[in-house]
Amino acid sequence: MASEWQERPQKFCRGLGSVLYPATISLEQSHVSGKLWGGRFVGAVDPIMEKFNSSITYDRHLWEVDVQGSKAYSRGLEKAGLLTKVEMDQILHGLDKVAEEWAQGTFKLNPNDEDIHTANERRLKELIGETAGKLHTGRSRNDQVVTDLRLWMRQNCSTLSALLWELIRTMVDRAEAERDILFPGYTHLQRAQPIRWSHWILSHAVALTRDSERLLEVQKRINILPLGSGAIAGNPLGVDRELLQAELNFGAISINSMDATSERDFVAEFLFWASLCMTHLSRMAEDLILYGTKEFSFVQLSDAYSTGSSLMPQKKNPDSLELIRSKAGRVFGRCAGLLMTLKGLPSTYNKDLQEDKEAVFEVSDTMSAVLQVATGVISTLQIHPENMARALSPDMLATDLAYYLVRKGMPFRQAHEASGKAVFLAETKGVTLNQLSLQELQTISHLFSGDVSRVWDYGHSVEQYAALGGTARSSVDWQIGQVRALLRAQQA
Amino acid sequence: MASEWQERPQKFCRGLGSVLYPATISLEQSHVSGKLWGGRFVGAVDPIMEKFNSSITYDRHLWEVDVQGSKAYSRGLEKAGLLTKVEMDQILHGLDKVAEEWAQGTFKLNPNDEDIHTANERRLKELIGETAGKLHTGRSRNDQVVTDLRLWMRQNCSTLSALLWELIRTMVDRAEAERDILFPGYTHLQRAQPIRWSHWILSHAVALTRDSERLLEVQKRINILPLGSGAIAGNPLGVDRELLQAELNFGAISINSMDATSERDFVAEFLFWASLCMTHLSRMAEDLILYGTKEFSFVQLSDAYSTGSSLMPQKKNPDSLELIRSKAGRVFGRCAGLLMTLKGLPSTYNKDLQEDKEAVFEVSDTMSAVLQVATGVISTLQIHPENMARALSPDMLATDLAYYLVRKGMPFRQAHEASGKAVFLAETKGVTLNQLSLQELQTISHLFSGDVSRVWDYGHSVEQYAALGGTARSSVDWQIGQVRALLRAQQA
Amino acid sequence: MASEWQERPQKFCRGLGSVLYPATISLEQSHVSGKLWGGRFVGAVDPIMEKFNSSITYDRHLWEVDVQGSKAYSRGLEKAGLLTKVEMDQILHGLDKVAEEWAQGTFKLNPNDEDIHTANERRLKELIGETAGKLHTGRSRNDQVVTDLRLWMRQNCSTLSALLWELIRTMVDRAEAERDILFPGYTHLQRAQPIRWSHWILSHAVALTRDSERLLEVQKRINILPLGSGAIAGNPLGVDRELLQAELNFGAISINSMDATSERDFVAEFLFWASLCMTHLSRMAEDLILYGTKEFSFVQLSDAYSTGSSLMPQKKNPDSLELIRSKAGRVFGRCAGLLMTLKGLPSTYNKDLQEDKEAVFEVSDTMSAVLQVATGVISTLQIHPENMARALSPDMLATDLAYYLVRKGMPFRQAHEASGKAVFLAETKGVTLNQLSLQELQTISHLFSGDVSRVWDYGHSVEQYAALGGTARSSVDWQIGQVRALLRAQQA
Amino acid sequence: MASEWQERPQKFCRGLGSVLYPATISLEQSHVSGKLWGGRFVGAVDPIMEKFNSSITYDRHLWEVDVQGSKAYSRGLEKAGLLTKVEMDQILHGLDKVAEEWAQGTFKLNPNDEDIHTANERRLKELIGETAGKLHTGRSRNDQVVTDLRLWMRQNCSTLSALLWELIRTMVDRAEAERDILFPGYTHLQRAQPIRWSHWILSHAVALTRDSERLLEVQKRINILPLGSGAIAGNPLGVDRELLQAELNFGAISINSMDATSERDFVAEFLFWASLCMTHLSRMAEDLILYGTKEFSFVQLSDAYSTGSSLMPQKKNPDSLELIRSKAGRVFGRCAGLLMTLKGLPSTYNKDLQEDKEAVFEVSDTMSAVLQVATGVISTLQIHPENMARALSPDMLATDLAYYLVRKGMPFRQAHEASGKAVFLAETKGVTLNQLSLQELQTISHLFSGDVSRVWDYGHSVEQYAALGGTARSSVDWQIGQVRALLRAQQA
Repeated sequence: MASEWQERPQKFCRGLGSVLYPATISLEQSHVSGKLWGGRFVGAVDPIMEKFNSSITYDRHLWEVDVQGSKAYSRGLEKAGLLTKVEMDQILHGLDKVAEEWAQGTFKLNPNDEDIHTANERRLKELIGETAGKLHTGRSRNDQVVTDLRLWMRQNCSTLSALLWELIRTMVDRAEAERDILFPGYTHLQRAQPIRWSHWILSHAVALTRDSERLLEVQKRINILPLGSGAIAGNPLGVDRELLQAELNFGAISINSMDATSERDFVAEFLFWASLCMTHLSRMAEDLILYGTKEFSFVQLSDAYSTGSSLMPQKKNPDSLELIRSKAGRVFGRCAGLLMTLKGLPSTYNKDLQEDKEAVFEVSDTMSAVLQVATGVISTLQIHPENMARALSPDMLATDLAYYLVRKGMPFRQAHEASGKAVFLAETKGVTLNQLSLQELQTISHLFSGDVSRVWDYGHSVEQYAALGGTARSSVDWQIGQVRALLRAQQA
Repeated sequence: MASEWQERPQKFCRGLGSVLYPATISLEQSHVSGKLWGGRFVGAVDPIMEKFNSSITYDRHLWEVDVQGSKAYSRGLEKAGLLTKVEMDQILHGLDKVAEEWAQGTFKLNPNDEDIHTANERRLKELIGETAGKLHTGRSRNDQVVTDLRLWMRQNCSTLSALLWELIRTMVDRAEAERDILFPGYTHLQRAQPIRWSHWILSHAVALTRDSERLLEVQKRINILPLGSGAIAGNPLGVDRELLQAELNFGAISINSMDATSERDFVAEFLFWASLCMTHLSRMAEDLILYGTKEFSFVQLSDAYSTGSSLMPQKKNPDSLELIRSKAGRVFGRCAGLLMTLKGLPSTYNKDLQEDKEAVFEVSDTMSAVLQVATGVISTLQIHPENMARALSPDMLATDLAYYLVRKGMPFRQAHEASGKAVFLAETKGVTLNQLSLQELQTISHLFSGDVSRVWDYGHSVEQYAALGGTARSSVDWQIGQVRALLRAQQA
Repeated sequence: MASEWQERPQKFCRGLGSVLYPATISLEQSHVSGKLWGGRFVGAVDPIMEKFNSSITYDRHLWEVDVQGSKAYSRGLEKAGLLTKVEMDQILHGLDKVAEEWAQGTFKLNPNDEDIHTANERRLKELIGETAGKLHTGRSRNDQVVTDLRLWMRQNCSTLSALLWELIRTMVDRAEAERDILFPGYTHLQRAQPIRWSHWILSHAVALTRDSERLLEVQKRINILPLGSGAIAGNPLGVDRELLQAELNFGAISINSMDATSERDFVAEFLFWASLCMTHLSRMAEDLILYGTKEFSFVQLSDAYSTGSSLMPQKKNPDSLELIRSKAGRVFGRCAGLLMTLKGLPSTYNKDLQEDKEAVFEVSDTMSAVLQVATGVISTLQIHPENMARALSPDMLATDLAYYLVRKGMPFRQAHEASGKAVFLAETKGVTLNQLSLQELQTISHLFSGDVSRVWDYGHSVEQYAALGGTARSSVDWQIGQVRALLRAQQA
Repeated sequence: MASEWQERPQKFCRGLGSVLYPATISLEQSHVSGKLWGGRFVGAVDPIMEKFNSSITYDRHLWEVDVQGSKAYSRGLEKAGLLTKVEMDQILHGLDKVAEEWAQGTFKLNPNDEDIHTANERRLKELIGETAGKLHTGRSRNDQVVTDLRLWMRQNCSTLSALLWELIRTMVDRAEAERDILFPGYTHLQRAQPIRWSHWILSHAVALTRDSERLLEVQKRINILPLGSGAIAGNPLGVDRELLQAELNFGAISINSMDATSERDFVAEFLFWASLCMTHLSRMAEDLILYGTKEFSFVQLSDAYSTGSSLMPQKKNPDSLELIRSKAGRVFGRCAGLLMTLKGLPSTYNKDLQEDKEAVFEVSDTMSAVLQVATGVISTLQIHPENMARALSPDMLATDLAYYLVRKGMPFRQAHEASGKAVFLAETKGVTLNQLSLQELQTISHLFSGDVSRVWDYGHSVEQYAALGGTARSSVDWQIGQVRALLRAQQA
């Protein structure tokens, strides 16, 4: 039942004998016994501290980019005359071997490997001997780790972009295929106006195109070379950073070495990108959960994305959508956590920055799963057009009734009021709005005439909304074209 | 002592007699008394609800853009044939009058003006009569408010960009003027390596250039026309949205009417932009607070940005910097609050979205103040170069000592160890690192020779860090050039 | 259009002539012109800094408690021999006059009154002369402000407790009155089992009783005297803190003067209390918004808590509930903001702590409004029992069908499977579960016999759930009793 | 390099042939190809969805409490007549066997074990056969999981309480031992007044006692039995919840079954408790990081809690303290994430609630590590009393100088001003405050006489602060007594 940390105390909490007690304190009482303040006394090494400090359990995910960065750096050292060609080749070859071990799952971690950088260099030394000790010349873990993380995230952003595009494309394809199905549009969850089902799909797809655009911008700011910044002051050994940039294919070189090693904007931005994207997906999930209730019955989730109940045999629950909705919280929590960690930190590297990687890995994983599950949900969702049609009701045309009067010359405010009276009259009489007779309507305004009957046609209604962005077919087609063009442009 | 809401209950909480009790419930007991569930019984109007619902206390800030949007819309209506030229002119003229009243502080709010839109239209009607009732034709408050907010924020982003550029420029100017002052660079708040003071200034300026870049991207996404989206389905009256775009000088037209009225990405993005920028400024403030302590004594705040103590006569406190640091929390809180509000909302407009404006106004105000105060602090900060120089110590050159050996051919890992031994030897002997004799150094490595004395020159040390981004003078000059070029590009 | 801060720059940004430029910098170039780094140059006073620093715009809400605290403190000074009886009386009388001016709205603020403490003392001096200068003896604004805030919040917690109790009581009264109405219980928003409507009401009321309990605990920790802590070191003049405690009716005395002036736990706790309470209310609001859709049609909001649409004449929107839901974000944002502000602060007072008050005032106001509006909504909500009844469907009794078999001896896992088969059979045949014939059921299990018909009675179903906390009438009555007892206990 | 999710897509993303396409859609074009919307097409099972949905990777931590809960429940079933004594014994025995397998690490998970509940029941069935199928009678995973989590957290709170008490006790012991060491007290990080070092330690210890008090309150609300609530409606089979309470030693029984299964207050409260406690620890860490800089040199971290630099041989970095400070962000992020997940959820169980457990486990682990590391840091911290003493300066006695005049009868406001003049005079003359001659002081006030020399004694200064909570020795002793008494009371 106990999780990792809990298991430890018992093992070492007791009597660790001598204590590193501050010698500079002149206390009246002597402390020969070594037992001082009743606390947890530790010797030279506190195993909890070691574990607390270590990052290898998660930064091992960086193995590949760490090797990649080191290979480029050894080329930089060679050009700077700090490695001979032979030494460089030795290092390059050794690093390839390290990578191979990781790829094949044969890399063995030592208990002393506190992070991926020390693990890889330790192994390199085992493989090629003392020359390995030249690799870290002029480099610090401060610029190394942030180079690794940027390389990893650059690749990850490409993966997430591709998954996001696939989701958007799936939505647009579906919107196009189901362009002619009508259903109620809601505001405040109250039935508002008839719209196309495809218009609803596109409303979410369009929001996601902005996430896609933002991700490319974030990726652009990720794609900047920090290597060659050292710990703080820069590189004093003539390493050519433009060579490093070219080797690692970065878009630009960081401008200031202190900023390069200590800022984590690119992480915060990525986490916020994910938070905002999840907020969008949480809203789409919410809609679909509602539309899938018995009461709405507009859609039905595929079995692949539903689960049953351990108690109630008749249940089929939209777990996939609920999980998507819930992850908005988790992802945002990581963003909030990192920002709080960064707030008020003194500049340059502080160990606090170690919090960045777990956040990135967790959020990247979550986004990857969410985007794929969302795509799966949308691809396999059943819709019930007949229920959608049944949910349209004449009162949703009250605005169109007002516009009817506007077209006959009545100022909108009066038309709105007149239509409101018609709604009230219908309610009072217990009939639907379209069941009011022409005479009854004319008691409200003499502008009503026989052609008012056209108002009651839902198909006719939606076709009026032909301005750009509206729910008319032409406008929906325009939307589809716009989103497709955006996708093409982003992929370019 | 009571704030606004608290004062209310007493006034209406008591016996409001008849209650709007649900007629459809068939309860056994009769409720002739009207007193039902012991709650707070209200009549047709609950004054707290009215106040709770109203937004005029803050959305009045939108008066100017609301008029601007309405003027453009009336031109759209005229082109669509829904207003005659004469009517349009009447409306345009009336709206100018409304704006004039606001500008001159003579606009009088009615108790019924629940928001700026109703207030302005109400006043327009008073000024020009029934024609005013045509203005809202085909428009909804849903597209109106988001148009207003985008117009306001677009302008505000320009203001904030200008303030941010001024801060960055001030920093770069100062860095250039004080290019040659050295002081200790810290990592983990421990003295690390000698750097230029200008290198520190630039590290923060460079971070701010990314905020500036991001703000332009946010502004680009703000600068999109939603008007013509109606409440949800679009505009059915042939209003030409390209005309609206041109009139209001928007960069693009929103693609989908539901998305246009219900998404608040642009607000969330702006709030996050501010949060990240504040995180940067909180770190700079933290540094300056530390550098201004008696213990560091590197800088001294101008009196204009300090305050005294009500108790301790000798105190001078860096309140300006502490406030900057603290606002990082406040601004992030608004960002977090809005994201939570958005999470899981059904799509399209829900009243929840009303939370957007107060967040935007408060954060905009805070950023404006913070950027100006930060500029003032930097412009007037006194520095103490002699204290900075005094804080440099030979142990900060231990890395350079290692590089000395590296240049003589020793692998870095061994050189690092050798330099560590020298540090330990000096500590043991109670001398500074540069006081070790050549013989003593040679007990550690025979590679040490007479030229090791050059290592102990701080000026020489920093000049080694000449790779791009480093702390050498040439590199600092390059940084200044880079930031200046960025600013010019962004302003273009 | 510009908000407060924006208006300022123009006024002072230009040419402020001489600049407080650091004299200790020895730059090569001379700076006779005074124009240095292109920044915003200010003289001895930067009006933006003054405004940024000032808190009087919001801490004026503390006027009453500030006077209260000062009166107690002057009694402490008199007992300590630092005031004569005559001086004390002068001060007490003067302070009463100050309070009277505030109460009557005649108190005039000076431009130099940066906070409520200086304003009140300044006014006291005008009223009674130099003796006023003795009031602050041994006191600091650090202990004064936190005393004021604790007094204010203590009172505010009582108000909020009362409002919360009224809401809970209203809910319990309603649950009792409508005890016998059945409707569908949902999990995952899918119809699950028939439950009592009162059971749903109580589920939310019970959650709120925990908020009520927590608020009392928070109030207990608020109710601790910090006065007499000075700025940091304590009080050196023999002021009797037990006397102060008694005068101000605090429950305890703060233990450590540094902790007393610098910790804001009690604020953070209060903000979190509000966040959690709002989370509960956001969930209740969400339910009611859903139940009020056309598709569910279980409830109808009173007109007093709904609003119409500016575009769609037929709309009636649940704005009150949407606002309640949205405020969960706003309130949490304040909590998040304060925690971030506190994170990593050096101990004792820093100006960052000034962020506490606006958060408290805003959240207190929001809670007061939300609790009253929620009470109003619940008191006036119409329900539609006939629609509720109609929404019950035989498949919701599938669990009961399984229990029927369990009671006949079948292990639950098999019974669950058998019931699942019956659900599937009914679906396949296109009939409802209760329309399956006995023969059909017996193809699934021979344990089915004639008495299975009792399963299909919803009233019978709910009465089975008679364990404590269940939906049987006896259990609902027990719940009502429990909540009533809790309320009585909390009010005691 | 890819983390878990990333590896998957390749494996199944390609051509899954037939798609579960919605049959109810009547589209004009035929879709014989099966390829529809370009999306990710899946068959009956989407492996990503399975993984996304599964919780066994983390809820396995609940194995022990899950068994514990099931054992109690089987006793309840026996009493209710749903199990015979023999069946119950079979189940109890089987469950013990399951627990044993977990304890010994021999429990084997199946790929189909989606959570700990299904895993344990699956294994039970393998061990004892069909009788296992009776265990879940009347129970739902909804009440089961929340029972498990409450049991786990109850135990965990006890562990964390013990660790927190040990930290506080260590601090109090240290404060007592080092009671007589003086050093500068800071406000706004500016030297304020001389205080005892022990007073500083106690300021943090006192803050932690409130965390300890709060944790007990949270634990009290955790310690409530939800079992017997079923999925939503309660338990229909006469299970005696008071028996379950007694078996599992819960303090109370949940009042409402819907509330019991769907509220996660107790989780949110716990996460907030941790956030607030971490905020305290982040402030203490910040102080110690500052005090450990070369510039302050008041304290020195034990090697066990420091680390070196990969680049700079002379560095020793306070990584332990930086990690403690940083975790405040991480922990708060989890709290923020959960609250956002909860916001606006429809009532009762939704899959979103599955987010609770990972947050609890991660935060519990973090708190356990942080509390132990903090205890280790405090136990082993070296202090430098001579540096502390050297940092005291006469200007820190300016307040005492004012009090000197107050004691001679001058109103404090004048005394504050007079002391300020003395500070200014000393600065002008380039001397320390105590170097002003009596004559010079008398130019400021004739109340100064020979006894002013006593003011300049730091030991005398602190002894004046004898009011409760102050820094005088008597008051520090009182504080120690208070904290010790609190600890005793809490442990009782």
